[in-house]
Amino acid sequence: MMRTDLNERLATELREWMPVGQRYLVALSGGRDSMALMHFLNVAGYRDLVLCHVNHCLRGEESDGDEVLVKETGEAMGLRVFSTRIGVKAIAEKRKLSIETAAREVRYSWFSEVARKEKCCRVVTAHHSEDQVETVLINFFRGSGSRGISGMKCHSHRDVDGVELELFRPLLAVERERIDKYVEVNGIAFREDSSNAEAFALRNRVRHRLLPEVESIFGRNVRGAVLRAAELSRRDEAWMQANLDNLSVKMSKGLDVKRLRELPEALRDRCIMGWLRESGVPNCGFDEVSRVSEVAMSMDRPAKLSLPGDFHVRRREGVLFLEGPQP
Amino acid sequence: MMRTDLNERLATELREWMPVGQRYLVALSGGRDSMALMHFLNVAGYRDLVLCHVNHCLRGEESDGDEVLVKETGEAMGLRVFSTRIGVKAIAEKRKLSIETAAREVRYSWFSEVARKEKCCRVVTAHHSEDQVETVLINFFRGSGSRGISGMKCHSHRDVDGVELELFRPLLAVERERIDKYVEVNGIAFREDSSNAEAFALRNRVRHRLLPEVESIFGRNVRGAVLRAAELSRRDEAWMQANLDNLSVKMSKGLDVKRLRELPEALRDRCIMGWLRESGVPNCGFDEVSRVSEVAMSMDRPAKLSLPGDFHVRRREGVLFLEGPQP
Repeated sequence: MMRTDLNERLATELREWMPVGQRYLVALSGGRDSMALMHFLNVAGYRDLVLCHVNHCLRGEESDGDEVLVKETGEAMGLRVFSTRIGVKAIAEKRKLSIETAAREVRYSWFSEVARKEKCCRVVTAHHSEDQVETVLINFFRGSGSRGISGMKCHSHRDVDGVELELFRPLLAVERERIDKYVEVNGIAFREDSSNAEAFALRNRVRHRLLPEVESIFGRNVRGAVLRAAELSRRDEAWMQANLDNLSVKMSKGLDVKRLRELPEALRDRCIMGWLRESGVPNCGFDEVSRVSEVAMSMDRPAKLSLPGDFHVRRREGVLFLEGPQP
Repeated sequence: MMRTDLNERLATELREWMPVGQRYLVALSGGRDSMALMHFLNVAGYRDLVLCHVNHCLRGEESDGDEVLVKETGEAMGLRVFSTRIGVKAIAEKRKLSIETAAREVRYSWFSEVARKEKCCRVVTAHHSEDQVETVLINFFRGSGSRGISGMKCHSHRDVDGVELELFRPLLAVERERIDKYVEVNGIAFREDSSNAEAFALRNRVRHRLLPEVESIFGRNVRGAVLRAAELSRRDEAWMQANLDNLSVKMSKGLDVKRLRELPEALRDRCIMGWLRESGVPNCGFDEVSRVSEVAMSMDRPAKLSLPGDFHVRRREGVLFLEGPQP
């Protein structure tokens, strides 16, 4: 893997796909990575920045200290700061989510709220290549296909609370040690462990236990290999998604069963997954897609299937219908 | 994941894609898995079997005991046995390979030799779903694309020493514990650890250290998830390989650069990889393919590149040429 530094070359590349004249919301935890990102964006010529911070209230005074640093940073640079305090623990318990997942949901909701206020949907985050490795591993061990194995994208879109956020990850190819060095050389202030120590249990176990064990077993650094698998999956997925557009499977009422049956499995799976997601069926995964696929392929009657969220799939007269929950 | 047992249902399915009237070479180590396979093939109605065994001479008298069991099995069932003794350790040192890789090469060479003698290219092996999980993990952490992540196929072809072997893996969807149970219920004789203990270091570390650690970190059995990722990759790869046939990139002299440039990365990579492999360029991987791809995409001159095995790639007049080593 090529090593990527936070230097003028990266800045030049960045300006090609992240136009410098526009406004951006910057996700700032106060930790090492996001403080380095802020510094780098400034050096690279990005001026119209709005800082977004969420105090997750997970570590008492420590969390408050993070918030203070973010506000001071905004003041020193003459940038506005949108900061909020949300008790993530209670939300995680209420929604039955892990702390990490709840914290992420809360953060993106906040970005979405600020985006609405500021009429700016562009959000910049500080994810780097080690974050990417961890994401890929977590997705892989959850049984993801190539979409999951390809990990995060440096440029993507995500619909949050009705706002389509445009996400930028300028540091995604940068290794953590390069960020460490950049922080040191430039004397950048940051809060130690401001996010990493926040009980993000699974990600921390992957970082501190799984990766060292894998590297001991294989006798070498495997991060480059994981990133390569991710890159190859990204290419595959890009091509397959591009092929989904011209399948003429979608009809006004549902999916054309005859066309669906003619498709190779890889495309049929993706068609069905896309259709279920667009239609608002919650928690769709491999199992749901497989069951819907069976209904499409089967010649038997009756062909009906229950899905999460009180949805039903029905095959009738060559069409696959989706029926929503009764109001 | 559906559980698969060694029962009449599996036998019925097997007979659909592995015709029962033909002759097969059976790879028999004398260990639990292959002895179970032998028993199952017999029960399923396969009669024309030829047993192939390699004594790797890695564990002295233990290895000799394995060989004895295989010969006794052949005698008891009235089947011919082709057994050979090869000092794998010396070969591994000479060819600078791991013991596991050297042992595999030696085994397949032996299958190929027997195939030639017997005019029978069909080889049956006892790989099961845990072997598959390990293979997928090893490939993933080597940075494989979807081909590697999809693991072994239950039916595939492999060219070995000029013989195209047709490989069958009837137990690939069967979990090890099902095999254990089958061996116990049917009182099948086998040699403990006949192959597993043979210093197949990497695979053993994956089995005994990596998998338990991953399952402890994720708090659940991840084998099903790994097999699902493999299955999704298999579907993707099948579809993409099917699309390679109609690209009209290949010309009599080499590859059409203009066509190559128009292709999405996923297809361009596969085109180049297939071309290099067919042309006999050794040790081609991601890096070699990327460099050849750069030569194709670049508008600069001169466009020439050295590859392993004294091969060279040259771009001239819109064609990508391959020049072999000078004799």
